[in-house]
Amino acid sequence: MTTPPTPTNHQLRLRARPTALPGPEHFDTTEEPARPPEDGEALLETVYVSIDPAMRVWMNEDPGYVPPIEIGEIMRAGGLCRVLDSRIEGIAPGDLVATRPGWQSHPTLPADALQKIDPALGTVEDWVGPLGTTGLTAWFGIRDVGAIKSGETVLVSAASGAVGQMVGQIAKLEGCRVIGTAGTSEKCRILVDELGFDAAINYREAADLESAIAEHAPEGIDVFFDNVGGPLLDAALASLRMHGRAVICGRISQTAATELYGVQNLGLLIGKRARVEGFIVSDFADQFPEARATLSRHLREGAIKQHLHVVEGLDQAPSALAMLFEGGNTGKLVVRVSS
Amino acid sequence: MTTPPTPTNHQLRLRARPTALPGPEHFDTTEEPARPPEDGEALLETVYVSIDPAMRVWMNEDPGYVPPIEIGEIMRAGGLCRVLDSRIEGIAPGDLVATRPGWQSHPTLPADALQKIDPALGTVEDWVGPLGTTGLTAWFGIRDVGAIKSGETVLVSAASGAVGQMVGQIAKLEGCRVIGTAGTSEKCRILVDELGFDAAINYREAADLESAIAEHAPEGIDVFFDNVGGPLLDAALASLRMHGRAVICGRISQTAATELYGVQNLGLLIGKRARVEGFIVSDFADQFPEARATLSRHLREGAIKQHLHVVEGLDQAPSALAMLFEGGNTGKLVVRVSS
Repeated sequence: MTTPPTPTNHQLRLRARPTALPGPEHFDTTEEPARPPEDGEALLETVYVSIDPAMRVWMNEDPGYVPPIEIGEIMRAGGLCRVLDSRIEGIAPGDLVATRPGWQSHPTLPADALQKIDPALGTVEDWVGPLGTTGLTAWFGIRDVGAIKSGETVLVSAASGAVGQMVGQIAKLEGCRVIGTAGTSEKCRILVDELGFDAAINYREAADLESAIAEHAPEGIDVFFDNVGGPLLDAALASLRMHGRAVICGRISQTAATELYGVQNLGLLIGKRARVEGFIVSDFADQFPEARATLSRHLREGAIKQHLHVVEGLDQAPSALAMLFEGGNTGKLVVRVSS
Repeated sequence: MTTPPTPTNHQLRLRARPTALPGPEHFDTTEEPARPPEDGEALLETVYVSIDPAMRVWMNEDPGYVPPIEIGEIMRAGGLCRVLDSRIEGIAPGDLVATRPGWQSHPTLPADALQKIDPALGTVEDWVGPLGTTGLTAWFGIRDVGAIKSGETVLVSAASGAVGQMVGQIAKLEGCRVIGTAGTSEKCRILVDELGFDAAINYREAADLESAIAEHAPEGIDVFFDNVGGPLLDAALASLRMHGRAVICGRISQTAATELYGVQNLGLLIGKRARVEGFIVSDFADQFPEARATLSRHLREGAIKQHLHVVEGLDQAPSALAMLFEGGNTGKLVVRVSS
């Protein structure tokens, strides 16, 4: 085995916990020589890091169901890496792995943190989105938790985002009518023109969210897939049909909020015989391979597309995270760390 | 068939819609001769009218999923009546029927509004509670919607009320640990000493609802059966265990409120993989006979008891309705119209 030259590992570490929006001021830049792998480890080059709403939660002192990122620790983040050097059986230089590299250019990680990806199923970009956590979240969230049936009407919030765009396209494949919400007219255009949504609502321009939903779904919605929370959730609950379902996947409007919005329409669940349900995609891990195979086929056939928003350079990751909470991204947001 | 003397029908009619709590000022008293039954009708004597939270909703101009009670109309109410005169085949004077007599002493009602009750299954008092809508609501709500399993921990709000007391006892029979909330120490005593609850929380005396729940359920609750809504729902959502379920049966704290409480903890459903679900008992109508037979057996065997709060006289019905929203009743609240 040849030993490659030791690269410099550029890192971004948590400097301070944000109280509201995260930004560059909450991170320190450090660098150190990449650590050569020991037995059972691999030295990686980070290709993409994913920018996800949950990352803001991990920055809190008590994130809830996962440990916090400690001050001084490298920012936690999922991503895709190329193997530079490996002392793991079955993983060789040049292989691509899905892992949680964090915000660093050259992590050295143990075997159990790495998942070798199959290039036959899709490109690196496919793996960062539709074949990765966001695609699987959409798949199990709308199919298993939302329990969509052909002919039903589905409303998706943050519909041009990573999960939302997949939810809408999967629901279309299942025979649903799909309406998306987004925050700009350009995002709404992409939803309808490029991603095949039946309608899109620009929530920033809607005078009244309930009326805006009713305009596109006069008989109400059967399933609301929510990535946003807040007033939109209230409007969607009011718009649910009998036996409707609201799937709570995320709540980006509340994640960085200093004051939480109070949902007033839960009482409507009674007369509507409706439910609100949360989920975590890892509970479906045993079904990932099968879902990935199906998603891969849809990608190859063009039935599912990804709208990716790429920010260049690890040093731009903090701004990218801020952008996510301001709705500045159009599509699944990633930072390209190396090409 | 002998024709009995025509009794006077005392009535209470809606005078004005309340904005908050209902009270005597919202009703007018009228009387007129009872109407002799035509073919397919029966003249009834009201024995009990039930006082239920939904009645306040029916007084609104737009109650949602049922028509409103119009101004001048006899107040709508469920109850139990004795047949005085009948021109319905299979229904004879002396029979007891469950119906919606409204607030009147001597209604004349058509056959399809009457359900003849089987005295073999229970007393008139059993039929007004455990064998009536409230008992069935508890049965299907906690078993089918709540999907309780033996060994789970259940929290019930308004636990000494009509539905709550049944929910707790049914959950105990299913092998659950049951905690109830109520608003006085006497109600809490009844829950534990008379109705077999494992613990009771006086929510008016709890400095912090979450801590009060944690004290009795240190590992959290699996199912919350909610009749109350408001801050208690938020505290219960925070106390839910993984895969927890909140069954929304009622929300008496919000029914007569001028300003709705906003629930802030829905985001916790994600990490907890939990759900909030509403239901209407009539959806389970095809299973009522079987449930009633089982409830009747439990009543006979003393495994389920009813704590009934009887207010005497139809003229007291408006005060009784007000009492319900102030938590003044201890147990299932009924007005005895005739003995």
